[in-house]
Amino acid sequence: MLDSYPKDLGAIDKSKLGECIKACLECGQACTACADACLSEDMVAELTKCIRTNLDCADICLSTGSVLSRHTGYDANVTRGALQSCAAVCKACADECETHADMHGHCRVCAQSCRRCEQACNDLIAALG
Amino acid sequence: MLDSYPKDLGAIDKSKLGECIKACLECGQACTACADACLSEDMVAELTKCIRTNLDCADICLSTGSVLSRHTGYDANVTRGALQSCAAVCKACADECETHADMHGHCRVCAQSCRRCEQACNDLIAALG
Amino acid sequence: MLDSYPKDLGAIDKSKLGECIKACLECGQACTACADACLSEDMVAELTKCIRTNLDCADICLSTGSVLSRHTGYDANVTRGALQSCAAVCKACADECETHADMHGHCRVCAQSCRRCEQACNDLIAALG
Amino acid sequence: MLDSYPKDLGAIDKSKLGECIKACLECGQACTACADACLSEDMVAELTKCIRTNLDCADICLSTGSVLSRHTGYDANVTRGALQSCAAVCKACADECETHADMHGHCRVCAQSCRRCEQACNDLIAALG
Repeated sequence: MLDSYPKDLGAIDKSKLGECIKACLECGQACTACADACLSEDMVAELTKCIRTNLDCADICLSTGSVLSRHTGYDANVTRGALQSCAAVCKACADECETHADMHGHCRVCAQSCRRCEQACNDLIAALG
Repeated sequence: MLDSYPKDLGAIDKSKLGECIKACLECGQACTACADACLSEDMVAELTKCIRTNLDCADICLSTGSVLSRHTGYDANVTRGALQSCAAVCKACADECETHADMHGHCRVCAQSCRRCEQACNDLIAALG
Repeated sequence: MLDSYPKDLGAIDKSKLGECIKACLECGQACTACADACLSEDMVAELTKCIRTNLDCADICLSTGSVLSRHTGYDANVTRGALQSCAAVCKACADECETHADMHGHCRVCAQSCRRCEQACNDLIAALG
Repeated sequence: MLDSYPKDLGAIDKSKLGECIKACLECGQACTACADACLSEDMVAELTKCIRTNLDCADICLSTGSVLSRHTGYDANVTRGALQSCAAVCKACADECETHADMHGHCRVCAQSCRRCEQACNDLIAALG
């Protein structure tokens, strides 16, 4: 869709932007699914912090993916704030999921998705200047 | 993520489910981007119905993708209702975007994404029985 | 905000519409909070179906509230589909929360919020004709 | 719902938290409705930046409202990041809507809602320490 935007995208790094949108959507879905998989584990009582962080991460990743998908009337402060918030929650969720990665495959996959999204957000923040 | 779900997914067609989740996320992003691209066209005044339908479709696709990503405590009525609502808005958005597809590349790409998601929802509804 | 819409809202019952938007937002928030409160209960393992239904209900209520907040380029099929999906998930969530209402205040409050939203959706569906 | 949370909410200012959740939901709805009302104005071509900022603000307010509605496994970094992002987009949206407030009632009401939410977010950031 990025290539079909009718106006100039400005100085933004289109490749980094596309990667970050994709990372946000994938991480949002991974976190929704990881929260649900945790909920289905017999040891759910030990995974409540993981579920909560998953849910926050899903919400913020999806809203950040939507903000990044808009280019009309661009405002760097809004985009930067959304990216910083997304990087923070992805870091928190990756940190938490990593502590369960040995035991639960969904936490391992989700942690990787969160790290990729954290990195993509930080790369894009750096590219914004 | 589907493969890492710790419990039995039940009788659901895992391949159709995975395709539908993917189609919902892609369509949600395409619709957000198409609404924004329409907003940037000089002839935006003729695209207001398209923008509105894009926004509805984005909201419903993302929420449906989240519902489908959950398997714990499955309730067929909830899933069916979400899929029917998603198929309806994808049809409406595809119909609308197709009327602009000759003129706007973003509407052409978005219409294809909406048709794929409409089909994926209808396939999954049929598979639910 | 309904009173400041610049064009004619058509034949829709403005009072029922306003009540339904409000009910969707309140129910979405109640379900998010109920899911989190369930997560914090010592008996969380017995509340996993409740949490999952809460999460679905929160997602669908918020997206339905957004669809109902738009009037430009109105499409009755989209609105009806969203309302039917919302009524279905509110019923499912109310039914589930009611089974825990004696034990958990958050489920009691959430069940009431779900019933109100289910009713508001059904009233609006009837008003749409 | 705040009063029915089963565990200790910690040192957080419950009144400021409740106000901020409410402000996020109201602002999210106001921004969705203002985007749609702008779309319906004859001069929509001059309101495209307003619509875009409205859409970002709606997405971020709703996700922030959800993050704030969770208390289990609280992480101050996640909450602070979400609040800072929300305050930034509310400021941007209020600034933009205020430039149209004389001409459009929906922008006037929406600007007030954005300012209230910006203030509520900043108050809660200050209360978090």
